[in-house]
Amino acid sequence: MVPIRNDTETLRLYPFPQELIISRMAEVLQCHNHEIDQIIRYQLESTGKMMRPRLVFLTASLAQHDPAVVRDVAVAVELIHIASLVHDDIIDRAMLRRGRESLNHRFGNHASVLTGDYFFATAFHLINRHGRQDIMENITETIRIMCAGEIQQLSMTFNVNVTEEEYYQKTYGKTACLFSSACKVGALASQLPEEVVCALESYGLNLGYAYQIIDDVLDFVSDSSLLGKPAASDLLEGNLTLPVIYALQQEKYGPWIKTVLSKRRLTSRQVERMIKVLIESKAIEQSLKSAEQHIARARTSLQHVPPGPVRMELENIAVYMMSEY
Amino acid sequence: MVPIRNDTETLRLYPFPQELIISRMAEVLQCHNHEIDQIIRYQLESTGKMMRPRLVFLTASLAQHDPAVVRDVAVAVELIHIASLVHDDIIDRAMLRRGRESLNHRFGNHASVLTGDYFFATAFHLINRHGRQDIMENITETIRIMCAGEIQQLSMTFNVNVTEEEYYQKTYGKTACLFSSACKVGALASQLPEEVVCALESYGLNLGYAYQIIDDVLDFVSDSSLLGKPAASDLLEGNLTLPVIYALQQEKYGPWIKTVLSKRRLTSRQVERMIKVLIESKAIEQSLKSAEQHIARARTSLQHVPPGPVRMELENIAVYMMSEY
Repeated sequence: MVPIRNDTETLRLYPFPQELIISRMAEVLQCHNHEIDQIIRYQLESTGKMMRPRLVFLTASLAQHDPAVVRDVAVAVELIHIASLVHDDIIDRAMLRRGRESLNHRFGNHASVLTGDYFFATAFHLINRHGRQDIMENITETIRIMCAGEIQQLSMTFNVNVTEEEYYQKTYGKTACLFSSACKVGALASQLPEEVVCALESYGLNLGYAYQIIDDVLDFVSDSSLLGKPAASDLLEGNLTLPVIYALQQEKYGPWIKTVLSKRRLTSRQVERMIKVLIESKAIEQSLKSAEQHIARARTSLQHVPPGPVRMELENIAVYMMSEY
Repeated sequence: MVPIRNDTETLRLYPFPQELIISRMAEVLQCHNHEIDQIIRYQLESTGKMMRPRLVFLTASLAQHDPAVVRDVAVAVELIHIASLVHDDIIDRAMLRRGRESLNHRFGNHASVLTGDYFFATAFHLINRHGRQDIMENITETIRIMCAGEIQQLSMTFNVNVTEEEYYQKTYGKTACLFSSACKVGALASQLPEEVVCALESYGLNLGYAYQIIDDVLDFVSDSSLLGKPAASDLLEGNLTLPVIYALQQEKYGPWIKTVLSKRRLTSRQVERMIKVLIESKAIEQSLKSAEQHIARARTSLQHVPPGPVRMELENIAVYMMSEY
């Protein structure tokens, strides 16, 4: 079992004003209504790794920029991420998020649907203030892709015929496109040359794929108390991730997995057995290799980015991400 | 029992390109994914009265404007309205909407949450294309108000101490602010002088209040087959509307209503009795008078609008709305 480290401890090469982002988030969300402020406070008490606003900051730091624009775009990207998590938790009927009671479990589905909407609207409101049509264009298109991807995923629940390609399509909508967007809007905020914007977009994309694959692997091999949610929760919800897809392809394990999954309900013994199968079949290993390939691609993209401390920190993030496992 | 007429039959003074709006909506929502396109098709099969895009068109028609901007803003406003209905239906666990199976009942809560998000993102994406920061500002702020209002409403379920003022606050977020916004963004699209923009905003606001009060009244006195949802559905969900608030204020009826509502579950006999009480106590009549006052205020606002066929149609809408009952 590998503990999930807090990246604020490891990533310190380049300053990231986490406190500024959190206080700005609280400021823009405020609406002087007791119920809502209570929900918002609860939500902001537990911040995650802030990977996406960190990427906005870093990519923008490659050139001169208006700090107010970068701060607000970073906040907007995090708000969109939180909104999508809140809505996902309703969908998954999740009880835990980041090791605490999920918003839907604490305040009800009703308040959660509306809080997510409120976060989305606040994000757009914030970006609009700066009149950056190019940034708004990228962010709104990203959300369209995220929603469309998730709707598609719903129809794939417990589908044992899911292909690797379909997994990547799904992961693009679920994670990679927002990582990519975070890097792109940061680059746009600093008006970097087009080839650098593209390189950073590709870096974010590959980083996002790796991030999701590692997250999928950790769902099987990490302790539930470290994950902040039950182990194998993806599988229990019928979300067949890369390790399962790889194991399904093997003659020795595929038939057993198909039989187990066909019932759409797994006993805790079957979950235990599944984890053993995923290790024994080397499906976990194979998944981590795929993650490594994406990390390598992300690092290759950085060759088109001007060298210096920012590029070094982007490199570090990639290396660090792989060390998460 | 008064049937709800389709206003396309009564409002013909000024052309409203309903077909154009519907086809543009289908076009911008398209995403070449079977599941999503199926949900969108179902949603677009049943259009409502299209009151909000109609208001955008009419107010914009008071001066020269870019028709592509007005069309897209009208479509965006309708998409936002639909998105909020879809999310409301999840909240209310509604089974029917516009006389058909609601989206959540047909495709599940999961798909409905995401479809609502997809509609919101598409609306913002569409407005952004035209680089009208003022319009985007108004629309994003309106959605923030709508969500905040609805969250607040949740805490007021079955609250028999709800005041008339709180009812108006709630109705502002639920209905009036989007009506007002539809009029304002139409006016902004045509760059009308500020006092005309304000007058139209006030017209929309009062029209919205009247619309909601009439809707609340119809929920008690109209046939459920005409409403497209069960009678007294607001009451059954604990949403205490203006007629109930007025009746609660009366010594003769208040205590009985309080006792009935304290159980948070009404039998069909109690619902029948409640409707009789609302009529007998003249709470229905009093509510309709309040609606009339708002209609009168809406018409007064129109005095600041240049006379002509557009203003006449805006007048007609107000008159027509009152005749709905």
